[in-house]
Amino acid sequence: MTIIKQEKTLFFFKNLQNIICNTFSKIDGKSLFKEDMWNTKKGYGRTRILKKGKVFEQVSVNFSHVFGKSLPKSSSNKKRDLENCSYQASGISVVSHPKNPYVPTSHLNIRFFLAKNKKRKTIWWFGGGFDLTPYYGFYQDVIHWHTIAKKICQPFGDDIYFKYKKWCDDYFFIKHRNESRGIGGLFFDDLCLPDFHSAFLFSKSIGKGYIDAYFPIVNLRKSYSWGSRERNFQLYRRGRYVEFNLLLDRGTLFGIQSNGRIESILSSMPPLVKWEYGWHPKPNSPESKLYTDFLPIKDWIDK
Amino acid sequence: MTIIKQEKTLFFFKNLQNIICNTFSKIDGKSLFKEDMWNTKKGYGRTRILKKGKVFEQVSVNFSHVFGKSLPKSSSNKKRDLENCSYQASGISVVSHPKNPYVPTSHLNIRFFLAKNKKRKTIWWFGGGFDLTPYYGFYQDVIHWHTIAKKICQPFGDDIYFKYKKWCDDYFFIKHRNESRGIGGLFFDDLCLPDFHSAFLFSKSIGKGYIDAYFPIVNLRKSYSWGSRERNFQLYRRGRYVEFNLLLDRGTLFGIQSNGRIESILSSMPPLVKWEYGWHPKPNSPESKLYTDFLPIKDWIDK
Repeated sequence: MTIIKQEKTLFFFKNLQNIICNTFSKIDGKSLFKEDMWNTKKGYGRTRILKKGKVFEQVSVNFSHVFGKSLPKSSSNKKRDLENCSYQASGISVVSHPKNPYVPTSHLNIRFFLAKNKKRKTIWWFGGGFDLTPYYGFYQDVIHWHTIAKKICQPFGDDIYFKYKKWCDDYFFIKHRNESRGIGGLFFDDLCLPDFHSAFLFSKSIGKGYIDAYFPIVNLRKSYSWGSRERNFQLYRRGRYVEFNLLLDRGTLFGIQSNGRIESILSSMPPLVKWEYGWHPKPNSPESKLYTDFLPIKDWIDK
Repeated sequence: MTIIKQEKTLFFFKNLQNIICNTFSKIDGKSLFKEDMWNTKKGYGRTRILKKGKVFEQVSVNFSHVFGKSLPKSSSNKKRDLENCSYQASGISVVSHPKNPYVPTSHLNIRFFLAKNKKRKTIWWFGGGFDLTPYYGFYQDVIHWHTIAKKICQPFGDDIYFKYKKWCDDYFFIKHRNESRGIGGLFFDDLCLPDFHSAFLFSKSIGKGYIDAYFPIVNLRKSYSWGSRERNFQLYRRGRYVEFNLLLDRGTLFGIQSNGRIESILSSMPPLVKWEYGWHPKPNSPESKLYTDFLPIKDWIDK
């Protein structure tokens, strides 16, 4: 029988939140995170937001631990028979909206679910992943991102990277635009095999992997000069981010369906967004390269 | 037996589109509508967008007529057994995003559905309404808006205004914010009584009523002076509009579920939007009055 150590997951989430916030603050050099500790009948959390930084326009690094009596459908990829079953969900969610359009937006999520099924048996699983949303693509960055992703998956099996990379591509696909949200990364869900220890270890690797994957890219691109052209494209593309999060994202839906703290749930929204009817990038422009060279799903790393 | 005159509804929608576009262009005085005629396997339409006007930052006035083999759930308020039943949907949708934050955003929709149920019987209904979303509320405007709404309902029965006003309040409620989208108006659906002629007549009144209700308000407020404070509040409140449209609006969902023309469907999105974590208006500020005096659902007109 596998032994579940929930307190260790909670410690890990909170510790990872500290590490990630420190890393963002250090690289930003101007703004610090403001923290809101919250506590309701449904749970508690630590929402941390960095606003109007030098490098980042906004970053949210949120920890929460919530309880409920009936698991919303959006909680799992599987069609589980867990309606009217009590549950706990804890986790960390990170979304960064950089100022410089040459720095990509990033997203990290790691979550741990505990529920009692109708036979009163405890079931549990981890889910999460990280994905990158560039405005202007750089092969070097995408290869770096996926190399780290592959590296952290390697100890868990040769096929793991490819499996979770594909899941990420599938999940972050904006069907109504026939477009990927970004260049992908890793996405996993319902992970409870082979045992708690291994599944937790993998989830921990995701946290470390995000840090190793994202910040070198930020450092490399944060000093690129940009103007209103790049800014406009960034604001326009952020519209896709909003469309994905509000129309398709299971995490956002779960938060709303479970009557979560709305300001925390929607702290993933970009601070400023543009929509423009009928806008298309000019052929062969740097903006069009995002659509032709980076968003189409491909194998960034050979098998 | 009621006689359905579909060609008359199509003529009405297109004619109303012309009238509304002319009225917007005239009041704007700077920008004209650009038209996209589109034609796909699933239908055709006439999307008209006014951008970067003097009075309006963006207005979309869209006509469409689409066909499908299985009616999406979002097409009707009722739980109809119309899956795998062929249908047609036609209608007009208007969303205006004014530049001046003292001018409210407005929305009009009128739609006509024709479907064949499983017994091969033709069923049909009208739906639609109009609602107003102010940034800064004025009692005079709200009373005017609801007075027109009541006036156009009057010939159809004493209770009609109150019934459709309540439906509008219920429909445009942003549950996750515990806030109304605006100050309401009229909303109706599944209207096929007492007969086609009367239901169509009511739908036509909605179109005329929108014009009579909205443009006097625009004329009254368009020259109010405003600055970055008002602009910021407008951009922030537009975030609620996006949240409603992408998370809750049946019209948007219908468009997406029926694989409609995405640029037309999302032409309701505001051109520029802000989100700010944890923002609240200062107590007793003009911004706070929106929340305390205008958004809470109330009877604007006595019975």
